[in-house]
Amino acid sequence: MADKYMDLDTLRFILYEVLEGDKLNKYERYADYDRTSLDILIDAVKAFADQELYPYFKEMDEKPAYYQDGQVFIHPQMEKVLKKAAELGLIGPGFEYELGGMQLPVLYNYALVHILDSANNHSTGYAGLTTGAANLIRAFGSEELKAQYIPKMIAGEWGGTMALTEPQAGSSLSDIVSEAVPIDDGSYAISGQKIFISGGDHQFCENFVHLTLARIQGAPAGTKGISLFVVPKKRITTEGTLEDNDVVTAADFPKMGQKGYCTTHLVYGENGNCRGWLVGEANRGLKYMFQMMNEARISVGCAATSMATAAYYASLQYAKERPQGRKINKKGVKDVSEEQVLIIEHPDVRRMLLLQKSIVEGALALILHASRLDDLHAVEEGTASEEAHLLLELLTPIVKSYPAEMGKVSIDNGLQILGGYGFTTDFILQQYYRDIRITSIYEGTTGIQSLDLLGRKIPMENGRAMQLLAKEVMETIGLAHESGLTQEASQLQERMGEVQLVTGHLLKYAEEGDFDHYLADATIYFEFFSTFVIAWQWLKMAVVAQQAIERNAMTYSKEFYEGKVMTMRFYFQYELPKMTAAGETLKSPNSLTVEDFSVDHL
Amino acid sequence: MADKYMDLDTLRFILYEVLEGDKLNKYERYADYDRTSLDILIDAVKAFADQELYPYFKEMDEKPAYYQDGQVFIHPQMEKVLKKAAELGLIGPGFEYELGGMQLPVLYNYALVHILDSANNHSTGYAGLTTGAANLIRAFGSEELKAQYIPKMIAGEWGGTMALTEPQAGSSLSDIVSEAVPIDDGSYAISGQKIFISGGDHQFCENFVHLTLARIQGAPAGTKGISLFVVPKKRITTEGTLEDNDVVTAADFPKMGQKGYCTTHLVYGENGNCRGWLVGEANRGLKYMFQMMNEARISVGCAATSMATAAYYASLQYAKERPQGRKINKKGVKDVSEEQVLIIEHPDVRRMLLLQKSIVEGALALILHASRLDDLHAVEEGTASEEAHLLLELLTPIVKSYPAEMGKVSIDNGLQILGGYGFTTDFILQQYYRDIRITSIYEGTTGIQSLDLLGRKIPMENGRAMQLLAKEVMETIGLAHESGLTQEASQLQERMGEVQLVTGHLLKYAEEGDFDHYLADATIYFEFFSTFVIAWQWLKMAVVAQQAIERNAMTYSKEFYEGKVMTMRFYFQYELPKMTAAGETLKSPNSLTVEDFSVDHL
Repeated sequence: MADKYMDLDTLRFILYEVLEGDKLNKYERYADYDRTSLDILIDAVKAFADQELYPYFKEMDEKPAYYQDGQVFIHPQMEKVLKKAAELGLIGPGFEYELGGMQLPVLYNYALVHILDSANNHSTGYAGLTTGAANLIRAFGSEELKAQYIPKMIAGEWGGTMALTEPQAGSSLSDIVSEAVPIDDGSYAISGQKIFISGGDHQFCENFVHLTLARIQGAPAGTKGISLFVVPKKRITTEGTLEDNDVVTAADFPKMGQKGYCTTHLVYGENGNCRGWLVGEANRGLKYMFQMMNEARISVGCAATSMATAAYYASLQYAKERPQGRKINKKGVKDVSEEQVLIIEHPDVRRMLLLQKSIVEGALALILHASRLDDLHAVEEGTASEEAHLLLELLTPIVKSYPAEMGKVSIDNGLQILGGYGFTTDFILQQYYRDIRITSIYEGTTGIQSLDLLGRKIPMENGRAMQLLAKEVMETIGLAHESGLTQEASQLQERMGEVQLVTGHLLKYAEEGDFDHYLADATIYFEFFSTFVIAWQWLKMAVVAQQAIERNAMTYSKEFYEGKVMTMRFYFQYELPKMTAAGETLKSPNSLTVEDFSVDHL
Repeated sequence: MADKYMDLDTLRFILYEVLEGDKLNKYERYADYDRTSLDILIDAVKAFADQELYPYFKEMDEKPAYYQDGQVFIHPQMEKVLKKAAELGLIGPGFEYELGGMQLPVLYNYALVHILDSANNHSTGYAGLTTGAANLIRAFGSEELKAQYIPKMIAGEWGGTMALTEPQAGSSLSDIVSEAVPIDDGSYAISGQKIFISGGDHQFCENFVHLTLARIQGAPAGTKGISLFVVPKKRITTEGTLEDNDVVTAADFPKMGQKGYCTTHLVYGENGNCRGWLVGEANRGLKYMFQMMNEARISVGCAATSMATAAYYASLQYAKERPQGRKINKKGVKDVSEEQVLIIEHPDVRRMLLLQKSIVEGALALILHASRLDDLHAVEEGTASEEAHLLLELLTPIVKSYPAEMGKVSIDNGLQILGGYGFTTDFILQQYYRDIRITSIYEGTTGIQSLDLLGRKIPMENGRAMQLLAKEVMETIGLAHESGLTQEASQLQERMGEVQLVTGHLLKYAEEGDFDHYLADATIYFEFFSTFVIAWQWLKMAVVAQQAIERNAMTYSKEFYEGKVMTMRFYFQYELPKMTAAGETLKSPNSLTVEDFSVDHL
């Protein structure tokens, strides 16, 4: 295990210097969060992660969650982790004080989750999904449901899940068939199966609260007939005790990675004795769920970023300690009479380190930027709130899928730095390599995020979100010019022109009603667009760093700030050109993937 | 497990129609190999792979090789596999008849290895490395060594290894410290340690023959003082019996993938009783080893291609069987009253399938092309032989690293097609995903291959290999014009111009003695150059396919040939533009990775 799994300085740099997040306390809801109290919270969570999470990371892979006699068993350390997380207020941290929360800004929530995920991504989902499930009840549930479920959930005594996926439907939620039949007492008889339910069962919670999508008998077909139910593993009797609710854990899926985090198969109502309680109105379940799914998408992006961050520091440490080979001298040869150099001296190793740094810090900046938009949406009013929301909507597919896709690339490069050792289980890189692979599938695959981006987010409100983004990017470009980062400022402006050009080219298909062509290369468009968005985030960071150096107003070392500017330059030189390639593909008139071809061509 | 793990038609199409490999029988050495005898051999090996290899593939992952009481144990099926492989002549198949070989062309050897690797990449290395080690003895060993070792090795009774890597040296072979001290009987006392020795020990061979690099006492420093030795686990006594040779297996490295293939740690001469026999001349060991390492590099490329091929067919089968979601209709919506479609109908799934097909078949074509060059080098004379060798030298880093790097991408896309199921161990994609990761490390990492390509192969003999390649590419472009593939012919020609431009740009640094800058982005150059080379291979295949369609001279279905042309188009549209991006990076005047920066910048 490496000495370091994330960088507090970089986290604080983004929070305070880039995003000025501590100024959120000007809003009443967040009034208690000045920088001192935030720093105390960050330090407390880091200490928790150091002591209770990170030391168990490798072990949770080696001793995976398993299924036995109808129940799932997870690593024993999770008992302590859940208790401690609840004590620290990490389950439902954003909830109102009166609900037992801390009214923590979303921005700071993700700062903390980044620490936890970097330390041990197998363990954070349990509290995270419980928060998400409780939040659904908080937002849309009746007062009775809130009173019955939320306190137990944020105390860590009951776990929560989001139960969407069914075996026959997968990502196609319109094909959900789980059924809810109304019964006299106002509840519903639930039956059906759900698969891939993360955190769906284990030995350390007394009860599990499954926020479950199902169809009320006779509901319309498709997504318009889906309702949301609270379906507990054990239901609350009129006496306030718990009794079995006929929700059976049928299996735990064995996986390639994230093995400490269970993934269950649930069967509801096999004995006709499963009850659920409707959340909000009938047939509006998917709408409710989506509001929370957006949160979950930020969480997945954060998890992917954090795994790649930890992998980066592990490979950095190796590169600083491992001597091997020599540099080429001026004669073009290596002098074997010299000592071997540390591998960090080799340009290709530096390239792999800078690539990782540019991906993980760029992704972290974007996640925190998006989280802050979520806060502004909540605490601002009128247009300001609306605009923050629109921008967040536009960025969410990138927040989710850039870290997932490029995090894989980042960790791949980290593993490569270790050479043969990277492939052995004696070193930790291979675990990150396996763990992160799920993040481009969780909560809507990259393909689905890409369709969301191009098909829904780009055209929404006549492209208003895109216009808002363009405005923000132009502001950054202006500041970059002022800070002397003129070359990159101009480059980003050119790239913005390409975004407009390519987007316009694709929208023409949509206007002609040719949606097949419009969306066929959505995933390539995602690569194109996200490369641009991260470049913008890097320029934003570099402006702040450059200004800090120039004004000699540096909280951290000069090298720290220079490193940010340098990594921005690296990104612009090595990553940004990929937009040209993707743009070429997107502008191509051919559409091989929508042409009629038979499976015999493959 | 999928029904299909490789495609015999595609293999034969490349062998016979693209490469006209059956015409190698005009050379005396290969006179016995007409198409009938080759087909019989291919079918026999396919049957062997179907029956003895493929059914054990998943099991070898689940029951990995392990170390116990000083010995390594591998899957019991390997006993049968080794016996059967020897019977089929698959150990040392290219060896002369008088040495017990079949004088099989290298081209056909890799065609067979492709079948074996696709079926079960955990098992092929044992015979493959035994072949490599025996080949070293055959090429450079004394008659006595040949007589003592080769027959036992190609009978599968004794295993062979290539023992290069040491803990303190890794890829830096100049830092090898294993020592050889001459003793009276003409042998050497060997001492030292070797790590990551594939196939280095198991219960099914009576003896292991380690082709070991070591320094003879007093030898010059660096690579010029390295000699090659035969160091058996058990040495042959004067009576012809075997006795312990003080080579101890200290461990088997547990790995993320390819778990059935053992990776041992060997300790030589701990009790001062280890003997080795010099192969060829003293201090020329690395040169000998390199000749064989080039073979091993083709083998690694073949393994990576084959894993990705099997993954492709597994994801293709899933895509053909799994219903999910609907197509967007002309109104831009999905009609839920319609049946779900098979996911192969979704453009993004088709894109992922075509991407895989373009990578795996492009890679296979290149490997077989290179193998044929190896044959021509052996059987031709004078300039023809020399030119084949030069071209092979140039292509070898691509043959090794393109399948390794892009095979990862290919399998990643295959796994993605399965969604959540792809991440579970119930499906096979995750095993390929883990297995292939070693191939960009084996036999010289991608970084090292890239340095070899740009630093050695491009400039060798004043760029003569590059000129030969350009000539071959121009021939293909000419044929493509004749076949009506004019658009792609022109595109490839433009790209060749870019290759020359970018290469010239970089060579200027070398001419100025600025080797740091010259080689800093060698890996990006590798991406750039290999993308071009595979485009050429695709155009070659498409020309043959197009001509077969036009002349109505088709051995397989029309869709088969159309599929080749279509996949070429896909590659030109989706992959070839990546050259533009890499070219932009390579032409950039900045050199962030060679500038002086401190580790505190990271």
